[in-house]
Amino acid sequence: MNACVNNLSELKLCYLGPQGSFTHQAALKVQQQCQLWNTLQITPTACERISDIAYEIEEHNNWGVIAWENNIEGVVIPNLDLLIGAKNMVGIARVGVNISFDAVICKSDSIDNCSTIVAHPHALAQCRKFAQAHGLKEKTSSSNAAACRDLLPGEVALGPKICADLYNRHIVSEGVEDFSGARTEFLVLAPRDEASDFVNIQRENFSSFSSIIAFIPRCTGAGVLANLLDVVRDHGLNMTSFMSRPIKGQDGLYSFIATVDSAPWDSMCKDMIQEVVEHGDWVRVLAVYPSSVRDNPVMSEWMLPNGGVCIEPSVDALRNLNVMQAERELLW
Amino acid sequence: MNACVNNLSELKLCYLGPQGSFTHQAALKVQQQCQLWNTLQITPTACERISDIAYEIEEHNNWGVIAWENNIEGVVIPNLDLLIGAKNMVGIARVGVNISFDAVICKSDSIDNCSTIVAHPHALAQCRKFAQAHGLKEKTSSSNAAACRDLLPGEVALGPKICADLYNRHIVSEGVEDFSGARTEFLVLAPRDEASDFVNIQRENFSSFSSIIAFIPRCTGAGVLANLLDVVRDHGLNMTSFMSRPIKGQDGLYSFIATVDSAPWDSMCKDMIQEVVEHGDWVRVLAVYPSSVRDNPVMSEWMLPNGGVCIEPSVDALRNLNVMQAERELLW
Repeated sequence: MNACVNNLSELKLCYLGPQGSFTHQAALKVQQQCQLWNTLQITPTACERISDIAYEIEEHNNWGVIAWENNIEGVVIPNLDLLIGAKNMVGIARVGVNISFDAVICKSDSIDNCSTIVAHPHALAQCRKFAQAHGLKEKTSSSNAAACRDLLPGEVALGPKICADLYNRHIVSEGVEDFSGARTEFLVLAPRDEASDFVNIQRENFSSFSSIIAFIPRCTGAGVLANLLDVVRDHGLNMTSFMSRPIKGQDGLYSFIATVDSAPWDSMCKDMIQEVVEHGDWVRVLAVYPSSVRDNPVMSEWMLPNGGVCIEPSVDALRNLNVMQAERELLW
Repeated sequence: MNACVNNLSELKLCYLGPQGSFTHQAALKVQQQCQLWNTLQITPTACERISDIAYEIEEHNNWGVIAWENNIEGVVIPNLDLLIGAKNMVGIARVGVNISFDAVICKSDSIDNCSTIVAHPHALAQCRKFAQAHGLKEKTSSSNAAACRDLLPGEVALGPKICADLYNRHIVSEGVEDFSGARTEFLVLAPRDEASDFVNIQRENFSSFSSIIAFIPRCTGAGVLANLLDVVRDHGLNMTSFMSRPIKGQDGLYSFIATVDSAPWDSMCKDMIQEVVEHGDWVRVLAVYPSSVRDNPVMSEWMLPNGGVCIEPSVDALRNLNVMQAERELLW
């Protein structure tokens, strides 16, 4: 290990506070993983704003962890926009956290004594059945962590798993959300200028990577996106996520963000990027992180949503298209 | 006008309450526009949950209005997912609302008497400078409308423009958000089974439309999306928004959602959909609404974000690619 990597040993890992947020939980998971590799000592540190995290990364060579994508809410667009135009930040790892709420009370308290439930409005909306079952009146808090921290006797708070220990609370019930299965993926960010050392360590430890790449085509109009994706396809790259984003203050101009099952230094991906650059388009790799190899599942009919139009492909397939159904589902 | 359209005259327009939300403001805008056409009397009606709105539309032939896309936060994914798999809902119009907050107090009160500012955590986060300038302590509420409604002397509330009238409050200051320019686009939803009458009225009144179309390819793997977009390009359609969405509970399967500058009954768009259907893919038109014609702007260099790689296209363009820059920006 070279000197530069050793210097990383006093890193802060900045997250959006207060202590006890889901992002804090993600930061603790990153800290654990880094200890496993025995290479890095990082200290999770709460920041008040995302801009404070960016400042710590870009100006003080620290690391950060930010929410990237939730399976219910989709990509966290402000964080994506931040990374596209960042001076000196790049994603180097990805961790997932299950969005699950524990109900906690003061240590000396009893649930039968409680009449109020305190949490951020989002958590209250996600745990309504628990509140109703216990006849609890809702009270909003600026964050779930603050609700757990400032809890009074007679109140139940909702918070991520780490809050009970953090604020010395008693867990009444675990996982009290109405619907389980929500999950948020977080990106670990490092200064772009310093990222190569850590990326090289990862290349020694992992064989399979994913990359998030942003493109801005030089031209606009019909077909621009299709032409771009032809290049991605022709180099055999598999995409797992794709979206367009309007460019701020520039009506009608878009960036495109793709997640591909490849590292930017793999020849397939590198050749693809070269071809796009040669075409005069703007390209930036926003993140690269270890990932597991995926199969390509086949779509069966039972997996399709309600409605819509789908027929067996054949030469005269359209004969099988029901006119009424086409009018209803396609608005022809 | 036929009998069926006349029956529409007693419609509810359901929105996510409470009264005084931005969605309520959007509903009032829709009501106004419908009165202008002199065709419809619709009554904005608050619902507690999005699922209640869906029920009113699908089971009681009413209309609804839901948030679709915000220029800062992106597409409202849960509402998109709802529409993709809905039994009997389709988008028939689109309205935009500027996300701007007025600061209000009780009629008899004075700002100098106030020490607290009450709002939803999102609004508090967006109006921090105003709160600091007046030395106000933050207090969270489940919604901005509730904050305006339940306001006490000594408190300032933040809310959409319509709240002052609605709850008989005095406006201290208009547009107190730290950064102006946030805007949310809403979709008006109608029962799919009843939509054609209203769509026909719109076809008589407008010449230019946009459509939101969902696709699910029959196969998965590298190139599936490129092949789909080739069809869109080859029919000359211009896209203004595009994204992938994982299909719930089906790892590795995706739907693709495109917004195109065309109506599904226009020959270009119709032919495109036919070709995709013939290929065996699943297609559903989620919405069609009047829109204005757009130019295709050209991308100039000054519009590009920080960093990234972008060179003049030429035969040996890659010679101009700085190695250091490529390593930093592309992680090669």
